[in-house]
Amino acid sequence: MSDATKVLARCHELARITDVEGETTRTFLSPAMRRANDLVTTWMRDAGLNVRTDAAGNLRGVRLSTSEKAKTLILASHLDTVPNAGAFDGVLGVMMALAVVENLGQASLPFQIEVVAFSEEEGVRFGVPFIGSRAIVGTLEELLLGRKDLTGTSVREAIHAYGLDIEQLPDAVVPDALGYLEFHIEQGPALESEGLPLGVVETIAGQSRYELVFTGEANHAGTTPMPLRHDAMSAAAQWITEVETHARATRGLVATVGSVATVPGAGNVIAGEVRATLDVRSANDEIRDGAVTHLLHHANACGTARGVTVTSTLRMKQDAVPLDYGLLTMLEDAVDSTGAVIRRIVSGAGHDAMIVAPYMPAAMLFLRTPRGLSHHPDEAVLPADVQLGLDAGAAFVRLLAARENAR
Amino acid sequence: MSDATKVLARCHELARITDVEGETTRTFLSPAMRRANDLVTTWMRDAGLNVRTDAAGNLRGVRLSTSEKAKTLILASHLDTVPNAGAFDGVLGVMMALAVVENLGQASLPFQIEVVAFSEEEGVRFGVPFIGSRAIVGTLEELLLGRKDLTGTSVREAIHAYGLDIEQLPDAVVPDALGYLEFHIEQGPALESEGLPLGVVETIAGQSRYELVFTGEANHAGTTPMPLRHDAMSAAAQWITEVETHARATRGLVATVGSVATVPGAGNVIAGEVRATLDVRSANDEIRDGAVTHLLHHANACGTARGVTVTSTLRMKQDAVPLDYGLLTMLEDAVDSTGAVIRRIVSGAGHDAMIVAPYMPAAMLFLRTPRGLSHHPDEAVLPADVQLGLDAGAAFVRLLAARENAR
Repeated sequence: MSDATKVLARCHELARITDVEGETTRTFLSPAMRRANDLVTTWMRDAGLNVRTDAAGNLRGVRLSTSEKAKTLILASHLDTVPNAGAFDGVLGVMMALAVVENLGQASLPFQIEVVAFSEEEGVRFGVPFIGSRAIVGTLEELLLGRKDLTGTSVREAIHAYGLDIEQLPDAVVPDALGYLEFHIEQGPALESEGLPLGVVETIAGQSRYELVFTGEANHAGTTPMPLRHDAMSAAAQWITEVETHARATRGLVATVGSVATVPGAGNVIAGEVRATLDVRSANDEIRDGAVTHLLHHANACGTARGVTVTSTLRMKQDAVPLDYGLLTMLEDAVDSTGAVIRRIVSGAGHDAMIVAPYMPAAMLFLRTPRGLSHHPDEAVLPADVQLGLDAGAAFVRLLAARENAR
Repeated sequence: MSDATKVLARCHELARITDVEGETTRTFLSPAMRRANDLVTTWMRDAGLNVRTDAAGNLRGVRLSTSEKAKTLILASHLDTVPNAGAFDGVLGVMMALAVVENLGQASLPFQIEVVAFSEEEGVRFGVPFIGSRAIVGTLEELLLGRKDLTGTSVREAIHAYGLDIEQLPDAVVPDALGYLEFHIEQGPALESEGLPLGVVETIAGQSRYELVFTGEANHAGTTPMPLRHDAMSAAAQWITEVETHARATRGLVATVGSVATVPGAGNVIAGEVRATLDVRSANDEIRDGAVTHLLHHANACGTARGVTVTSTLRMKQDAVPLDYGLLTMLEDAVDSTGAVIRRIVSGAGHDAMIVAPYMPAAMLFLRTPRGLSHHPDEAVLPADVQLGLDAGAAFVRLLAARENAR
């Protein structure tokens, strides 16, 4: 069995471990997470790793170094899933990390390697993502620990109920990280559209998310002449068109209105209110901030022209996170050594790498995602791409070892 | 008490007769309808009318003529309401009809007058409107009688349960109508915006209603570059903007997208599907048909530009119904005699007059509606406008009598 075949088989085996029969759904600290972690624990132990579960539920397997005072290279991704997920988002990264370590055999390295399977990245249970990676950089703060799920259980209580000791949280922090590498499916169509297997992430895009409310006047669709209308949907529609036009015209910007709801929402009643979301992302914070300013201003103009008022509420703002230049160029050299084309890529989605990057040098390798499809049972990867990724991972470890030995 | 004051007091008294405590809701053949009809029966009898309830539940009071073989002038509107209604939609027309007859006293007329309080116009209980007026022109067909409400009761069964005899339906038809006049609130802002109390309806606008489905591809809002998107909401938004633009640029046309729903409807997911309604109305069928053709074609173009497919389903088509030219000019003369400005108006909403107009000469008088507000507890009319309407009604009866006497 090739390494890629083994990785894919493990991903599929984990996909059958679920909290909801008939689909793949594993949320933070659920029974399925425990079974998945038990299975991965056996694989980690078979690979000779020292395994523990930290207080945030992260499963961690360490390959010790022969050298004293060795720092730690973290190879990580997450094992939790969205509801009705595919088999690869997160899971593939953990399985590839493990395969990279397995392939090292008895090779001597000047650093430890810690494979980390994060317990929580998707934000499904508590509505807040990245609980696992926040724990290893020490930013799982009181506010987050008090956050409650739909049953009223807080993060703190859930950790206790799972049998973990919240007081041990400080031990989850990696004190001596040499670097961080994450394998992950791209979850977008860019690599596939260019026929490329791998992408080296240079930046995790920043995001701004807003909710806009257009308030006009609900009225009879038959008896209200066009000039006397205050049609909230017409105002919103003109604005949504500008959101698309502006993003298309601005390099490196994506902007999306994914949710639109009309009130009262009857075919024969002019919409008195429209609620719409705005999601703007870019690797460049200035471009993103400029776009947000323009689009919120434009929404007001679309409203004013129709006697419709517009309010906007900021729901999320996350600046762009550049990954480590030293590690990303090393990762490019590693990709180059496999014969694959080097392609730098911006991640439009958030990832654990974004959380850890401010605290340690971090790199990330994307694998081509067929049809860009993710968060879906049909999520896929190509075995040849996985093998290339594993080869690049092995090369990366060799390059990093050479650099450390040369110090 | 002035006539207008009496009319308004009766409307308010009827508004307290409801199937739902705390609001005004009277649906077809409900307990509240029976109580409302009982009350109006006493007012009709006090006015000297011969009262009966026909097999469709319409309450009918006839003022006999002194002349033999006299034909019948029908003064009508409806007593049923939408849920949580105002006091005037329909009800005002019945109360004004009764007041016009009361004011005639012992005057001798060459025609009978039948005041008809239709049992059903709003379509609430059975999802199909105009049951009352269909009955008096003999178009309450088998299909409609078999239609069921939410409890599974058919129109036929509801009529039986109310104590009426469906076999008597043919007796509901008016065999010898001289004409039909309906008073009704405008339910729109046109008269108010021009500072006019009354409008003489020349045409009931035709309507076309469609449901459109824009089908693109749901995808990640962060990882999908703009050129690779199939964004159903962007396609729909461009189209909605054209719906407004085209209607504004086309005289006598209104077009509305009142309901828009996004699937999956998450802020960070490109909309894979958008369902939108289209409501197009005009007094001119050619203009309406032309607009529909243009707008459906345009929807397809908006889709094609983005790899989004568009399907449209016809939900309703009703051609425009012109009212009787002879009666509407007579009504204009009647309005003129009150000193009010003559304003012809198109009704953008359907009315009982639309149902009867193909079978008898029909006219309709609109009363200014403050803020255009209707189907709402705050629905209102101005007492002075009601008085002008009553005066116009009385003048109309005099003019019609003069014409008939001159034959």
